[in-house]
Amino acid sequence: MSAGRGGGVRGTRLPRAVRERQMMDAAVHTFGRRGYRVASMEEIAGLAGVSKPLVYLYLNSKEELFTACVRREARALRASVRDSVDPRLPADRQLWAGLTAFFTHTAENPDGWAVLHRQARTHGEPFALEVAAMRDEMVARVASLIGAAAREAGTAGRTPELAARDMTGLAQALVGAAESLAGWRHEDGTVSARDAAATLMNFAWVGLGELLRGERWTAR
Amino acid sequence: MSAGRGGGVRGTRLPRAVRERQMMDAAVHTFGRRGYRVASMEEIAGLAGVSKPLVYLYLNSKEELFTACVRREARALRASVRDSVDPRLPADRQLWAGLTAFFTHTAENPDGWAVLHRQARTHGEPFALEVAAMRDEMVARVASLIGAAAREAGTAGRTPELAARDMTGLAQALVGAAESLAGWRHEDGTVSARDAAATLMNFAWVGLGELLRGERWTAR
Repeated sequence: MSAGRGGGVRGTRLPRAVRERQMMDAAVHTFGRRGYRVASMEEIAGLAGVSKPLVYLYLNSKEELFTACVRREARALRASVRDSVDPRLPADRQLWAGLTAFFTHTAENPDGWAVLHRQARTHGEPFALEVAAMRDEMVARVASLIGAAAREAGTAGRTPELAARDMTGLAQALVGAAESLAGWRHEDGTVSARDAAATLMNFAWVGLGELLRGERWTAR
Repeated sequence: MSAGRGGGVRGTRLPRAVRERQMMDAAVHTFGRRGYRVASMEEIAGLAGVSKPLVYLYLNSKEELFTACVRREARALRASVRDSVDPRLPADRQLWAGLTAFFTHTAENPDGWAVLHRQARTHGEPFALEVAAMRDEMVARVASLIGAAAREAGTAGRTPELAARDMTGLAQALVGAAESLAGWRHEDGTVSARDAAATLMNFAWVGLGELLRGERWTAR
């Protein structure tokens, strides 16, 4: 970990992959805390213990470095959630496992989450597409879990109004709720990943459970 | 509306407030579609039909112009939601009215919503505080509606675990879900404001209703 400290690359013989990883770690930390626009390549190089030209040599530009960070953090978050979910379990257990993994991962990687959620969604930037793709995948997975739950509940036939689009809408609501709770936890700092997942399961699943039984809210 | 076209300010005698409004309209449109970083003051001036120096004279800098846009759009959204809600109605009706107003306003002002939700939340920027304040107000209002609903249901005493923090968590989930659905509607383009509000009421209220009756999701 102390390799490369002291500035400059001379005298160090770290493999390129290790160097790149150090630079990316420093970049995620800096972008996540300071914001894309404010963060400087000097800061990132300093934190990584390398020279600024080396960062440019390896990662080309601030934009490409940020895009690489987005891609890496998105891949890590996806993998955490995916690996936690056993597809043989009932839909609500899968959702519970996925949400717990999501809140745990975002709590353990607050800078990575800030990069994905607060920095990279700004549209008009090329990296926004990376985050949009990750988010679309999450929404699709949640929508398919809701579909599976509807089939498990055996009510899919009886509640025809829960069509594919309704499931996408519900999945969008659930993913947005999870994002919001992750941000709240980040600010509050005292809510555990399990508590956040439980809040959302109660909110979402008790609600979805009723929806799947054919309950509807109506204006009195 | 055609006043001021043809570039330059000479020969026009529009009051400053009208000019500023035209510039802000042009700025919201441009920032909302192109993104803060990519949008240029030339583009904004061109769309407003004024010279670039005049934009600087009136609104100082790109950052101040953007901050003014954020403030104006946040104020308009807040007012739409607030004016739609009759505090004498039951909590779920208030939420329904507020959500319908929220989805209607964001659909009618897609660029303003993009400025608030996709551009201005990028932290590290001074304008992020404006949006955070608006969002905190929404969360507080929703939390207080959930509290009112708990009292209406008469179960506040029987479900002590629905404490202030749980209500904030649920309100965070609901606001995040609403933001997500507003973004989805923006991309999808075929979901009406009423449909979006109904999706969220069903998701949130049928779920909350069960929570308030003491139902809990538990891992089987």
